[in-house]
Amino acid sequence: MAEHMSQSELDYPFRLLEYVNGFRVSKAIFSACELGVFDLLLKSQEPLSAERVARELSANVDGTERLLDALVGLEILEVETTDGKALYSSTDVANLYLAKGSSKSLHDMIIYQSQTIYPLWNNLLDAVREGKNQNEKTFGHLPEDFFQVIYRSEEEMLKFMGLMNNSWILDGHDIATAFSLSCFQTIVDLGGCTGALAREMAKVYPSSSVTVFDLPQVVETARKHFSQENDAVAFQTGDFFSGELPDADLYVLARVIHDWPEEKCLPLLKKIYDTCKPGGGTLVVEAMLFENRRGPVMAQIFSLNMLVQTEGRERPPSEYVHMLNEAGFQNVQVCRTGKSYDAILAIK
Amino acid sequence: MAEHMSQSELDYPFRLLEYVNGFRVSKAIFSACELGVFDLLLKSQEPLSAERVARELSANVDGTERLLDALVGLEILEVETTDGKALYSSTDVANLYLAKGSSKSLHDMIIYQSQTIYPLWNNLLDAVREGKNQNEKTFGHLPEDFFQVIYRSEEEMLKFMGLMNNSWILDGHDIATAFSLSCFQTIVDLGGCTGALAREMAKVYPSSSVTVFDLPQVVETARKHFSQENDAVAFQTGDFFSGELPDADLYVLARVIHDWPEEKCLPLLKKIYDTCKPGGGTLVVEAMLFENRRGPVMAQIFSLNMLVQTEGRERPPSEYVHMLNEAGFQNVQVCRTGKSYDAILAIK
Repeated sequence: MAEHMSQSELDYPFRLLEYVNGFRVSKAIFSACELGVFDLLLKSQEPLSAERVARELSANVDGTERLLDALVGLEILEVETTDGKALYSSTDVANLYLAKGSSKSLHDMIIYQSQTIYPLWNNLLDAVREGKNQNEKTFGHLPEDFFQVIYRSEEEMLKFMGLMNNSWILDGHDIATAFSLSCFQTIVDLGGCTGALAREMAKVYPSSSVTVFDLPQVVETARKHFSQENDAVAFQTGDFFSGELPDADLYVLARVIHDWPEEKCLPLLKKIYDTCKPGGGTLVVEAMLFENRRGPVMAQIFSLNMLVQTEGRERPPSEYVHMLNEAGFQNVQVCRTGKSYDAILAIK
Repeated sequence: MAEHMSQSELDYPFRLLEYVNGFRVSKAIFSACELGVFDLLLKSQEPLSAERVARELSANVDGTERLLDALVGLEILEVETTDGKALYSSTDVANLYLAKGSSKSLHDMIIYQSQTIYPLWNNLLDAVREGKNQNEKTFGHLPEDFFQVIYRSEEEMLKFMGLMNNSWILDGHDIATAFSLSCFQTIVDLGGCTGALAREMAKVYPSSSVTVFDLPQVVETARKHFSQENDAVAFQTGDFFSGELPDADLYVLARVIHDWPEEKCLPLLKKIYDTCKPGGGTLVVEAMLFENRRGPVMAQIFSLNMLVQTEGRERPPSEYVHMLNEAGFQNVQVCRTGKSYDAILAIK
């Protein structure tokens, strides 16, 4: 029996109750993001009362006050009370990660979690029973291809791309530096979405040319909503499953493999191997499971997310190495970053 | 700015990502409860494979394996892998708190969280905007009285009563011992539901007579589903808002006040004061906020839950003391338990 469970958890299950309560903590933060609480507090030159926050955000005063207080309890906001009057201000962490316009904002990721992933997970039990994603039960959409569901409208596509963009602004630097990639003159990020990971690579390897390769409608939306002045990355349209790959020294596959079953991934990896010149390769980026099945818990939870939303799964490094070997790659190295995503570099 | 935010959280928001991911952790545990994972592993004499668990619970093998692995990562289950074959077993904490039949099971609480509270919280943003509960938007039920929504069918009433029952089996002893109540010969638990708190009181004060007072349909369901052989508590039917109170030395109000606005609570407290003999009193049991608004975070989150589901709120002790003073009680003592619920004893 589990030695790591302290007697005190058996006496009173504080940690278990925290897990049980976790969905409410998530939704409190999500709702504050959706309401614009962190943006307002960042812009304000002074601490604000709940009445003022409610008025500015067209919300109910009592509801706003309860939300602000919960965020104080979570140490995401600060409160000072003078003569019974409470004034709320933001924290450095909220300013950096929760306000919309900040350089490391997770705002769009949170909107996607709140509006798409939270309802999907209401059907987790059915996903485990049926072994398949719950898009139809949750959203009533019929396309077989789950990416057609994710991209079912311009609004939904934009939300998903916002999620990916936030995610690679947060984790892209660790991925770009997981291996020294300066030997690769041309880097193509297959399914590179908004280009956020590609831009992190261009920053770290300024003498390499970095190109995002994605579906035409994705590239169009990326150009419209996520383009930058003097953008360090180029965009190219195509379908890496059905079409030819552009020439490159390094092909990045970031959170692509985890969307699909092995039988769909293997031909893609073989196509990459065949297109590669000797010395070229591929960088596979995923949240990788431990071989002993004991974690990381975030990757294990992501694997359940893949079940609920896609046709894929998270895998331990050995499964990626096996697939890469099958595809022809013999020189394969694994790097765990200690953050959310890890990297595998395979050289031809 | 918040000194408690360490530099490392600014470097990489591990804790914030845990909060964002909290809803998925909750749902993984909820789904395992609903599927019967913990009951099966408790009953099994040996560790089980994912295939075996899936077969016994009529679930998909791959989905079950991912769920079991996530529970291992959360340290709620254990895994041993021999020759690539993984065998799962339970932990003491899961056996005690998550298996259905155990003495301190939170199973029914978790079912209620999963099936009723999780969907309600999908509308938290609207609750904050509108300042009112989201029962109609979530469940499409029309009764004005939110208790008519909670009790909208025998099945729903039973789920809610299961939640309350689990809750007082967990927290009842701390409440019963928050003050020495042995001087009260007759104790009546107003809105005492299944009698779980009353039974904890009867255990601690065996020479007192303890009676549960609740609505006729609640008492009927309590007798049908939660009665015990040689039950230490009696049941009496009535409506404490509209009817007369039974005679008693001590009236318990456990998680009653937090359901309602002050204007509905004050007449109830006055009625209790008027019915009390000198030396008699009332025990108010709630999750109490700190006066400085900085916690406890669980009580702050509960207050948002009251917004989403009821007409009430959580309050700091001063507000209960104020209401009790208004009702006539002058001798009022507060006891914080350090657990989920606290107690206030008011004597006439």
